[in-house]
Amino acid sequence: MFTTDWKPNKSSSVPLHRQITDFIKEKITNGEWTIGYKLPPQRTLAKELGVNRSTVVTAYDELIAEGLIEGKSGSGTRVVNNTWNLLVTMPPPDWTSYVKVGTHKPNLPTIQEINQAEFIPDIIRLGTGELSPNLIPSMAMKKIFHQLANREISYGYEEPKGLLPLREQIANYLKTIGIYASPSSILIVSGALQALQLISVGLLHKGSTVLTEKPSYLHSLNVFQSAGMRLMGIPMDKEGIQAKLVKQYKKQQKAALLYTIPSFHNPTGTLMTMDRRKQLLDTCQQEQLPLIEDDVYRELWFDEHLPKPIKSFDKNGLVLYLGSLSKSLSPGLRIGWIVGPEPVVEHLADIKMQTDYGSSSLSQWAAVEWFSSGFYSKHLNEVREQLKIRRDFTLDTLNKYFSDLAVWQKPTGGFYIWLRLLPLISMRKLFEIALSEGILLNPGNVYDHHAEQYLRISYSFAPLPEIHDGLKRLSMIVKMLAK
Amino acid sequence: MFTTDWKPNKSSSVPLHRQITDFIKEKITNGEWTIGYKLPPQRTLAKELGVNRSTVVTAYDELIAEGLIEGKSGSGTRVVNNTWNLLVTMPPPDWTSYVKVGTHKPNLPTIQEINQAEFIPDIIRLGTGELSPNLIPSMAMKKIFHQLANREISYGYEEPKGLLPLREQIANYLKTIGIYASPSSILIVSGALQALQLISVGLLHKGSTVLTEKPSYLHSLNVFQSAGMRLMGIPMDKEGIQAKLVKQYKKQQKAALLYTIPSFHNPTGTLMTMDRRKQLLDTCQQEQLPLIEDDVYRELWFDEHLPKPIKSFDKNGLVLYLGSLSKSLSPGLRIGWIVGPEPVVEHLADIKMQTDYGSSSLSQWAAVEWFSSGFYSKHLNEVREQLKIRRDFTLDTLNKYFSDLAVWQKPTGGFYIWLRLLPLISMRKLFEIALSEGILLNPGNVYDHHAEQYLRISYSFAPLPEIHDGLKRLSMIVKMLAK
Repeated sequence: MFTTDWKPNKSSSVPLHRQITDFIKEKITNGEWTIGYKLPPQRTLAKELGVNRSTVVTAYDELIAEGLIEGKSGSGTRVVNNTWNLLVTMPPPDWTSYVKVGTHKPNLPTIQEINQAEFIPDIIRLGTGELSPNLIPSMAMKKIFHQLANREISYGYEEPKGLLPLREQIANYLKTIGIYASPSSILIVSGALQALQLISVGLLHKGSTVLTEKPSYLHSLNVFQSAGMRLMGIPMDKEGIQAKLVKQYKKQQKAALLYTIPSFHNPTGTLMTMDRRKQLLDTCQQEQLPLIEDDVYRELWFDEHLPKPIKSFDKNGLVLYLGSLSKSLSPGLRIGWIVGPEPVVEHLADIKMQTDYGSSSLSQWAAVEWFSSGFYSKHLNEVREQLKIRRDFTLDTLNKYFSDLAVWQKPTGGFYIWLRLLPLISMRKLFEIALSEGILLNPGNVYDHHAEQYLRISYSFAPLPEIHDGLKRLSMIVKMLAK
Repeated sequence: MFTTDWKPNKSSSVPLHRQITDFIKEKITNGEWTIGYKLPPQRTLAKELGVNRSTVVTAYDELIAEGLIEGKSGSGTRVVNNTWNLLVTMPPPDWTSYVKVGTHKPNLPTIQEINQAEFIPDIIRLGTGELSPNLIPSMAMKKIFHQLANREISYGYEEPKGLLPLREQIANYLKTIGIYASPSSILIVSGALQALQLISVGLLHKGSTVLTEKPSYLHSLNVFQSAGMRLMGIPMDKEGIQAKLVKQYKKQQKAALLYTIPSFHNPTGTLMTMDRRKQLLDTCQQEQLPLIEDDVYRELWFDEHLPKPIKSFDKNGLVLYLGSLSKSLSPGLRIGWIVGPEPVVEHLADIKMQTDYGSSSLSQWAAVEWFSSGFYSKHLNEVREQLKIRRDFTLDTLNKYFSDLAVWQKPTGGFYIWLRLLPLISMRKLFEIALSEGILLNPGNVYDHHAEQYLRISYSFAPLPEIHDGLKRLSMIVKMLAK
């Protein structure tokens, strides 16, 4: 999908098609659109710029006449020359070949589509896994800024493991959930995704297998796959991942690691029971299988009686524990943490230093303020209350429009409802039709290739009227496709 | 080197050795020091904790008696058991084997030593390539915080390429140095190091060769090597990298990319002349060799007549241009940028999203304020003035103590003086003796394996009296070793 910040000036005396040719020429002569670059289809560009298609046709024709672009039926219009290039003998490098060869894989096409569609104005985002902007405490953030202005804070490179005052605050916080860790066994990272990235390049052999829940958020990422690892999903039941299957999967797949989201699992919303947590840790202990516990949704509970983290009863350093402020406070802070055995944490810290020289000091100091001021725990109370209202509203709406069309469980925390559609319809069609009607979905097969009849519904992001409107219209599309 | 935040409480009634055994037991039972973990040598721990060695001996003996640790002559003392482990049948996983196998290489040993020694209190850092804390404008930063408190800013996930208002500010800034780029051809990154990381995994084949200056800062990193690439240095002269050699090196090495720091090169301080820049671009154009222009020191000039960036006369999108606020304003902001052809920038943005979901919003908004308020350009004037004073002072000091011991060039900007020592001495010995006397050096072989007689001296970081004291004492060590 082509998008641009530039729009033609309709009140200018310069004709629209001329403005467009000038815009494209600038792209070409500045080397932003290199030779071989495929221009957006005329219809797409016309829509994006808010002009008639004929205006774009005129503009393209002019550029073709000047020898800058060339249109071939079937393969679209491409840049074939640039004004400077006429003067030099050799063509420029073919960046396209570079873009194709990197060792890091691009995002899944559906994920790329979702990422891009998120910036379409007025789109209803029914699957977005983040806090609604009005749940992000911008007033408290203003207070934090004023507090930061009155503090003496550091702006240089930080220690490899991250700012010590922040690691101390996190150590204190961890005690409240039953994890006793010293600041030296904590690494600050730029969100839990970076933690996975560091683990993937820092701890695993190429060709290793990572076990995880089936479905899992991990399947929507390329982080382990890009580092040459395979993912293998283990089926879940209502209590979480089926721990009794771990031994067999480990043996068959020669697995090197198990990744789990025990609290309010993404995408199913499942809360792993205490018994299952203990069983999983015991099994991993017997199998000598290290475990990554991704607990970023933990604080978003609606019922206080939450089982303790697996890490809290791990006395052998088997578990690498991941936490983050992204889901519970603000993704824009980019602050998360890894807790684990010191040599592992030190190794990952060394790699982090080689990757980005540590996380933003500003964000780290802001996080210190959030914890130490008590604003964070106050905010959590507020956000739990609001999320619960949102969950209940969304469940009511589903009952109203989907009672004959789908089944689901009631989540006790987190963001997600894992909706299984009953009619056998094409999810690709559903995605496309919904998108054309301004509704963005997260289809289940992003989290498990075989989950063809599922949707991840998130009640955390869209305004309640949009959730209602979106689900209502979605139910009609489903019915239409089921006919 | 072992460091810890914990210190025994000397006014406590609990004996010191008991406090130490308790501390170690906690590390072991929490799984921070796993089985197989090598404890620090008694002498090291005693020094770090500020106690007598005999106290540590007593503590270790107790732990050995309890069966938790085991000392073997020659291989040090290791954790062999933990209290919980006695109850379970299987040993915990050997994290050590995981730490060793990751695809990402650890930092060079010397670099690790330097990184750690930087946190030794009162050490004189003669090679550190960052602004002195008193050159970081903390008063202006306070004003920025107040301004941010009064702005409506976003705290969610940002667009893949980064915050649009920041990309607009950077596009405006780039015009002032002759680069015309639209916001859509700019990617915000967490510092220039991350830019290299993204390029290494996103654009290059494994086994590719990257050409660069010899010596180069790039040799001190593992970023390309960890992604499976080789580095090959091309000799420099006073005008910069010897462009006439590029063709031959490219052919011999099948090089895929050329990386250069044309302005105030790290570590030599060389400013590439305009002629050389043009010659280099022409050659790369003929050879179809893409070029990374790392220009993070550009704004730190002492003489306004600075050649324009290579990117400014690149009309074919051959150059990926890197800039950053880390060297000129604050490393802790972690804000840098990549400018290049749109498809390349979009591909790198996609990988960045998979790596860390974008840079800190806080840092990005703060950077917007720095640019838009005019504080940044004011600050640059100040910092240039101060760096010039520091350069002159350092050159004077070198003239005083090193005129018979070394040769060097006068830099016209940036942070570095590349000192070639005349006596043939062991640089490893020099590094170690200097470190034991509280002086931290950046030896030349970190930047070029063959640069055995060089030091990178930085005038940007240490206070002037420390630069004087450090260089004076260093000259005595050099003389001593030369005997």
